[in-house]
Amino acid sequence: MKKHVVIIGGGFGGLKAAKVLADYTDLVDVTLIDKRNYHLFQPLLYQVATAGLSPADIATPIRNVLSDAKNVTVYMDEIKSVNPQINSFEAGTVSSKYDYIILACGATHSYFGKDHWEEFAPGLKTLEMATEIRRRILMAFESAEKEADKNRQKEWLTFVVVGGGPTGVEMAGAISEIARQTMEADFRNIDPKDTRVILIEAGKRVLASFNETLSIDAKADLKNLGVEVLNEARVTDINANGVALADAAGVEQKIASKTVVWAAGVRPSPINATLNVPLDKAGRIIVSKKLSVESYPNLFVIGDQAHFDEPDGKVLPGLAPVAIQMGKHAAKNIIRLIKNEASLDFKYVDKGQMATIGRKLAVMEFKGIKARGTFAWLAWLFVHIYYLIGFKNRMFVMMQWTWSYITFNRGARLITKKDWKDF
Amino acid sequence: MKKHVVIIGGGFGGLKAAKVLADYTDLVDVTLIDKRNYHLFQPLLYQVATAGLSPADIATPIRNVLSDAKNVTVYMDEIKSVNPQINSFEAGTVSSKYDYIILACGATHSYFGKDHWEEFAPGLKTLEMATEIRRRILMAFESAEKEADKNRQKEWLTFVVVGGGPTGVEMAGAISEIARQTMEADFRNIDPKDTRVILIEAGKRVLASFNETLSIDAKADLKNLGVEVLNEARVTDINANGVALADAAGVEQKIASKTVVWAAGVRPSPINATLNVPLDKAGRIIVSKKLSVESYPNLFVIGDQAHFDEPDGKVLPGLAPVAIQMGKHAAKNIIRLIKNEASLDFKYVDKGQMATIGRKLAVMEFKGIKARGTFAWLAWLFVHIYYLIGFKNRMFVMMQWTWSYITFNRGARLITKKDWKDF
Repeated sequence: MKKHVVIIGGGFGGLKAAKVLADYTDLVDVTLIDKRNYHLFQPLLYQVATAGLSPADIATPIRNVLSDAKNVTVYMDEIKSVNPQINSFEAGTVSSKYDYIILACGATHSYFGKDHWEEFAPGLKTLEMATEIRRRILMAFESAEKEADKNRQKEWLTFVVVGGGPTGVEMAGAISEIARQTMEADFRNIDPKDTRVILIEAGKRVLASFNETLSIDAKADLKNLGVEVLNEARVTDINANGVALADAAGVEQKIASKTVVWAAGVRPSPINATLNVPLDKAGRIIVSKKLSVESYPNLFVIGDQAHFDEPDGKVLPGLAPVAIQMGKHAAKNIIRLIKNEASLDFKYVDKGQMATIGRKLAVMEFKGIKARGTFAWLAWLFVHIYYLIGFKNRMFVMMQWTWSYITFNRGARLITKKDWKDF
Repeated sequence: MKKHVVIIGGGFGGLKAAKVLADYTDLVDVTLIDKRNYHLFQPLLYQVATAGLSPADIATPIRNVLSDAKNVTVYMDEIKSVNPQINSFEAGTVSSKYDYIILACGATHSYFGKDHWEEFAPGLKTLEMATEIRRRILMAFESAEKEADKNRQKEWLTFVVVGGGPTGVEMAGAISEIARQTMEADFRNIDPKDTRVILIEAGKRVLASFNETLSIDAKADLKNLGVEVLNEARVTDINANGVALADAAGVEQKIASKTVVWAAGVRPSPINATLNVPLDKAGRIIVSKKLSVESYPNLFVIGDQAHFDEPDGKVLPGLAPVAIQMGKHAAKNIIRLIKNEASLDFKYVDKGQMATIGRKLAVMEFKGIKARGTFAWLAWLFVHIYYLIGFKNRMFVMMQWTWSYITFNRGARLITKKDWKDF
């Protein structure tokens, strides 16, 4: 009698778990549910938002990735509820019992209770948000070119990025590069080099999860690219006119800007609160060393949705390598449980971290080694291409980048409308 | 004193005119207005609708194409009115006087007065429509996979294309190939080979503008691909349940289908009716042999927006080569007028026509030569890649196609949502 394993979410963790379970056709039937039909390579989402890559370059249909996994059925459906007491789940159309379930629903961004800011400062979590940000950035230059009033022209040419983590740093660097390199010769009434890009970080330094030297390096690199970095600046308001800030001493300032991008808080899936299981302060589900929930040994939680304490007391961060390793481990533990073997403790193998700032500019650290500049940038390129799902995407992204590198051009500078009927 | 030339529209004709005028920096300043920021390679739009190419593969920013044309200013703006009596135009933000104007606004599709059909049968004119059609086609397979009711499953797997011109033939062939080749191994509850694709044509044959032998060939090729072709079938209704038809004898039938694509009528820009100039029955502006309007020798109309009578009495069709040649000729005539030389008559150099049906299947005719099959298909590939604006796009599209050809795969199978806030 084969066991039914349900996986919710086709991100890095969920997809890896499905691939591992696909090798046990005699033991398990797997159902994978995702509200999207594609796996998204989120680390490169900022490239879509800044017109470097097309959506299809960083997304692959989940059912295509799993087409050889004959014991895996993929449904594009939205999870409504999971009831671990009776081992069942319900989605929009599909619902069933399960023997084991893996929750891999990821996270979305949080506006710290100020959800009305979203309208003026979209975050970067989905392809739709990325193309919306792309639309806003490109439209700002188009509007500036048409604008006769010099003050309003300045507002169009001022871009604010909120949040100094890897995504914020990557966005700020890329916007500055677009203005100073890609668009250099394309306008007649404005000089794109007059563009201001302002990166706002509430903490003392950008890339706070990195070693302090690298934070200082990154800030210097951003400056060289023309990005103004404001540290210890707290956003107090975002509206159609721009951003209001308070510095450490509480002194307020306003930045007039038409284009604001949100790269700050993260919030886990709303399903967590419905499960009646222990959550951490951030709302993540606290998992045991086996990656399951203490009270339900057949309920596994992985990736951004999970709170996992490392032996040194640190919580594992929301990174792709963490999700991938967790997905593999959860799948292996399910197989062990089915075989009546004891499940094993999860140990994260540190893959380091890296962030890119611009052309030949990046920072990385790996097992105590720190690197910066061209070497770190090449390493970043290599790692990101290597991990891109599917050979085809790898090849195309590499070519897009080679092309962009040689020509300073960006291939996806399209302003698409929201409504398909809007001719 | 330099003359001010205004071009409305950055399609094949408008862009060509701008490029020609860019060589006369001492004679003219040019303003090009388009409501999009990109030039769209419309002949390949069906490839976006069928997940073969990404939007950015067939679109290039107009201002980037013209970045070296220093006497050309590009505005992304929507034309509101043209007043040829006082030589002025007004757009959303920009407005000005002109010495010469070239209208190159193209055409959109027409539902023959049944605009409420659009909701259920989107046409293929813009990138947004193409991604909407792609969304519907891919969602149909996803919905069929989830559907327990066999009848409703069939409705999801039935696709109707209305209109047997090149676009309709290309769409029908591509949908059938997706089902039978690309998605073959990706589903567990349905067999994509059960997909029905029905091409509806009101006239006696598909590809009516081609030689009759080629129409018969194309129909046979479509049949081999699994497409059912209905000739002399008139659409009487389209709604959420499918399409109602009447045959030549008036006998009605209904086709239950969840996915209908409109590839039938064409209607020119609504601005035509506001100009008080002679229009043909289809609403196109009737132009003289000089490509200008009889009453306004400084008002030129080109491409799909123009009605041009050939010496044999035929009207030039809405094809890219026609628009390109007209754009070049209109620009040359403007330069001649500025130099006080007599303007010249336009003569269209026939570039033939071609349509692709599927993998190694195409038809073409050129100066009386007819071809079919692999040769025609290779010619089609070559011509379309050659004319793709910009070297980069050419290279990437060629690679996408090589990839698709080798693997039977399609790179852009993304179902993106309409609203970016829809997480």
